[in-house]
Amino acid sequence: MRPFVFVNIAMSADGKISTRERRQVRISGSEDYLRVDRIKAESDAIMVGIGTVLADNPSLTVKSPELREQRRAAGRDENPIRIVVDGRGRTPPDADILQKGSGKRIVAVSRKAPESAVDALRQHAAVIVAGDETVDLPALLEELHQQGVRRLMVEGGGTLIWTLFRQGLVDELQVFVGNIVIGGKDAPTPADGTGFLREEEFARLRIIEAVRLDDGLLMRWEVERRERPAR
Amino acid sequence: MRPFVFVNIAMSADGKISTRERRQVRISGSEDYLRVDRIKAESDAIMVGIGTVLADNPSLTVKSPELREQRRAAGRDENPIRIVVDGRGRTPPDADILQKGSGKRIVAVSRKAPESAVDALRQHAAVIVAGDETVDLPALLEELHQQGVRRLMVEGGGTLIWTLFRQGLVDELQVFVGNIVIGGKDAPTPADGTGFLREEEFARLRIIEAVRLDDGLLMRWEVERRERPAR
Repeated sequence: MRPFVFVNIAMSADGKISTRERRQVRISGSEDYLRVDRIKAESDAIMVGIGTVLADNPSLTVKSPELREQRRAAGRDENPIRIVVDGRGRTPPDADILQKGSGKRIVAVSRKAPESAVDALRQHAAVIVAGDETVDLPALLEELHQQGVRRLMVEGGGTLIWTLFRQGLVDELQVFVGNIVIGGKDAPTPADGTGFLREEEFARLRIIEAVRLDDGLLMRWEVERRERPAR
Repeated sequence: MRPFVFVNIAMSADGKISTRERRQVRISGSEDYLRVDRIKAESDAIMVGIGTVLADNPSLTVKSPELREQRRAAGRDENPIRIVVDGRGRTPPDADILQKGSGKRIVAVSRKAPESAVDALRQHAAVIVAGDETVDLPALLEELHQQGVRRLMVEGGGTLIWTLFRQGLVDELQVFVGNIVIGGKDAPTPADGTGFLREEEFARLRIIEAVRLDDGLLMRWEVERRERPAR
């Protein structure tokens, strides 16, 4: 058993999530900002990869005082559980995700992470060890489910999202397409990594909705279930 | 003076136009196929970069007999002028774009193209020489305008499209977003090259329409006019 996993990402009209220098850029506007805050508040946990932590240093907290209050009134922490997928334990102990806002944090590492790094992280977060070289995502998701996580939001980056798609672990993809062209063959995209090579491997989607938002478009896609090759 | 330039491209939901091996993949379906054939028939010329010719060997002919007949009835060639942007004259003389279908072809080269290659290409196409190292696109577009081209369709690839955007030469962007995830940090995207680095450089778009088509979505964007830095 694993949580419902949805990916939320904003990209330019040419499919980039930032510049090739990985500089964080404004792709959406205030309507999407509120939407993302709301779906975050509705999630049990929110997950990013270590690359995103190192590049953007996000706190991943719920921004709206009203939404935080609603969560508290429902007997929950103000923020969803914040999770970093961080095979080698490189999350800086002073990262905003570990320092800002209240609520539980989890850093998921592999057995490759140095003990000293893991010990330092344990001062600020629960540490889950899963996988030998990289984080074993199916095992991590199973553990999260056991801890009560039913709805998991993934905010990036492109490597984590790719790995989740490759392993057939994504249920829904939400993409905001912004009214800009960024360009760049080395600019990060919503799904990086090695990529699928054959058409029969591609993740197949079914459109749920497409609505105008800010000066762009929000697309929601359901990922079609199918048998995957054994990992 | 230059023609109205519109880019037409199909990408996956994660912003890829093919796999990292540049293998041509089916992103759209039969409705989009007919749409693309129609907008091609409505254009005076259609342009691709040499990378696309070498990877996909497209003929760029109008496929529908009815649309070809309509063009003939209007006193035009069956096919729009087919143009390859090919700085070094690498278009194979047996490429489908030079061999298949009737109508005029243009290969645009730079002064860097070997004379022997240019001579060989002149057997099959008009050759326009513009630019020292790479094709001077503003000069090429001006020349095309002088030859009567008013509506120019650009079908790819990512490098040509990027260069057109960088130089402020695109008026409209049509993107079909297909219901697949391809992934791959090295997979081609709608706009590759170096990419913009600063937000104030980004090409800004205004959405014209977004409509469901096949199992995906067609987005049409107008490119906002603005002053560009001198090239």
